[in-house]
Amino acid sequence: MSAKIKLLLTELETNQLDSMLVTSPANVYYLSNYLTDPHERVVAVYVSAAHDPVLILPAMEAEDAKNAGWTHAMIDYHDHEDPWELFLAFLTNSGKIPKNLGVEEDNLTLSRFNKVKGILPTTEISQAQEILSKLRVIKNEQEYELLKKAAELADFGVQTGINALKEGISELEVIATIEYELKKKGVQAMSFSTMVLFGHKTASPHGTPGTAKLQKGDMVLFDLGVIFEGYCSDITRTVAFQAINDEQKKIYHTVLEGQLKAIEASKLGNAVGNIDKAARDHIDANGYGEYFNHRIGHGLGLETHEYPSLHGNNTLPLQNGVCFTIEPGIYVPKVAGVRIEDMIFMTENGAEILTKFPKELQIIK
Amino acid sequence: MSAKIKLLLTELETNQLDSMLVTSPANVYYLSNYLTDPHERVVAVYVSAAHDPVLILPAMEAEDAKNAGWTHAMIDYHDHEDPWELFLAFLTNSGKIPKNLGVEEDNLTLSRFNKVKGILPTTEISQAQEILSKLRVIKNEQEYELLKKAAELADFGVQTGINALKEGISELEVIATIEYELKKKGVQAMSFSTMVLFGHKTASPHGTPGTAKLQKGDMVLFDLGVIFEGYCSDITRTVAFQAINDEQKKIYHTVLEGQLKAIEASKLGNAVGNIDKAARDHIDANGYGEYFNHRIGHGLGLETHEYPSLHGNNTLPLQNGVCFTIEPGIYVPKVAGVRIEDMIFMTENGAEILTKFPKELQIIK
Repeated sequence: MSAKIKLLLTELETNQLDSMLVTSPANVYYLSNYLTDPHERVVAVYVSAAHDPVLILPAMEAEDAKNAGWTHAMIDYHDHEDPWELFLAFLTNSGKIPKNLGVEEDNLTLSRFNKVKGILPTTEISQAQEILSKLRVIKNEQEYELLKKAAELADFGVQTGINALKEGISELEVIATIEYELKKKGVQAMSFSTMVLFGHKTASPHGTPGTAKLQKGDMVLFDLGVIFEGYCSDITRTVAFQAINDEQKKIYHTVLEGQLKAIEASKLGNAVGNIDKAARDHIDANGYGEYFNHRIGHGLGLETHEYPSLHGNNTLPLQNGVCFTIEPGIYVPKVAGVRIEDMIFMTENGAEILTKFPKELQIIK
Repeated sequence: MSAKIKLLLTELETNQLDSMLVTSPANVYYLSNYLTDPHERVVAVYVSAAHDPVLILPAMEAEDAKNAGWTHAMIDYHDHEDPWELFLAFLTNSGKIPKNLGVEEDNLTLSRFNKVKGILPTTEISQAQEILSKLRVIKNEQEYELLKKAAELADFGVQTGINALKEGISELEVIATIEYELKKKGVQAMSFSTMVLFGHKTASPHGTPGTAKLQKGDMVLFDLGVIFEGYCSDITRTVAFQAINDEQKKIYHTVLEGQLKAIEASKLGNAVGNIDKAARDHIDANGYGEYFNHRIGHGLGLETHEYPSLHGNNTLPLQNGVCFTIEPGIYVPKVAGVRIEDMIFMTENGAEILTKFPKELQIIK
């Protein structure tokens, strides 16, 4: 049994649970080393104090899971079969119906919850998402190395995007170039839809890239990341193309100083809400408070956005081994949006910045 | 109020519901014309017989939603705020607490369901996913046109991939080329992770592309699709590179004949399970039954995989306006995997094949 599953069993016991049904693809990967995107099909790891773990998955993926290193039992079902019925048959045969079962309440849908309740009417079902989140939030040395490598590839992606800038190129063409070069380096997937925005579109934090053409005086915002052996990176840089006006320059420097203050506040033991506050106070003081309309950042690892959420009201203290983003932004409609984002890894020596791409204002010629 | 929302209200009334809280991004888009990937944040459309609809979304996306055409009320929240509290305040102010609320049980997570129950303790909450699925399954003329355009782009993707094949190229390099050319044509996103597999890897229906190099005698499997204005395409083609052996050839022709038989079975009124059966009987009869280990296909539209599931036990009759895939496959470990997939649109005149890329066996020189 893997060290991670053993640790989970210990934590379950501490929480008076004898078992857990893990259904989110990220947590299934964390526990089984089997990475899959099952779409609407069920994939789950059932962990129990009573016997070895079991992997539930579509029959057509059984070989892939074995190749990924899964050596325990499997319930592999065909599309016309009901995986929950097969799971119940397995539990009934083993004679070990769980008494206190944990589930991931932020992932399990209402219909699946009802299925589980339906097959296990005598089992008490509890919300146990946080148990796994708290295990995953502390990254080990191997995870640190993967995140660092993912961050390096994100740096490369930004550099590739900047190199591609020229008058008349479109946002989607720049994205195509970035992803082409990353895939040639062996990257299998981006960690989210690559964002490249020009000009006024930068003022939309979740804007959609299109066929807009690059013009002199545009700000250009890159927000991208890759998945490297399951681990996600996330970086944002904003540059000016050929020219910049005074207000855009002021916005840029306000964001950058706010970001540096937030990094400075990233100390072991400090509440994550204070990281948000450090940047927000600076941006407020410079008159742009209303234009910084999102939290300072989020945890990342197997998912691009994971526990914890770094919003102003979160009192969670920073611990050694936590990885998160710091990404303040100012978005002034019709003027410009600027966001600067780094990945931070907390070590005993303080905050290490995993993304290394320069942050000084660049005016691309 | 949009025609779609009016239709939903009528269906809700038929189902004794006075309101529905719609939380899946696809259904939010369907009702609001606002397409977003909110990650872990809440985005919802609240539809009620008592007043105009309301869109709940992050404050930073409010402008985007207005630009997409949303003209009704919005509850836009900041990251440190609880959208459910704001929603309750809205309902309390309006004096219209719902009595019978529908939710999407295949999308709503257990934690969100508990939040909704928490703020609305006197409301009866019912599973209403199918109401929207049944609206969405019948596509109108405009949706047909978008699906057709998405299918054309998928055809182009396969052609681009085949053009890129040469000895020594890697699976990821072929994917990079396909996506580069599609993005240059204005495609903002693929509808799922593009799959290109070489040689023995084709025998894994959900295999992961990597840096494997193309060699003479490899089968090459392409499975890809794009999102065009929100609508998804999905095509699979398998070709041989420079040479093919007799067993691979037999597998190819068995899949192709099975696929053609399934298309022939796609008649208005026929149960979708019979489409699966048509291909499966043929593949069984040729001795490959155990190697066709998934259903024949799935509905598609705003999602790549949506209602209905075309598995052998599904008795749902085919209706005019339904769009789905037909994609039998035979996967023989160490020999080859072959899958051939088309998008089918049901019209009054029968099945129209939206993906047009040729299906005769191609040996690429």
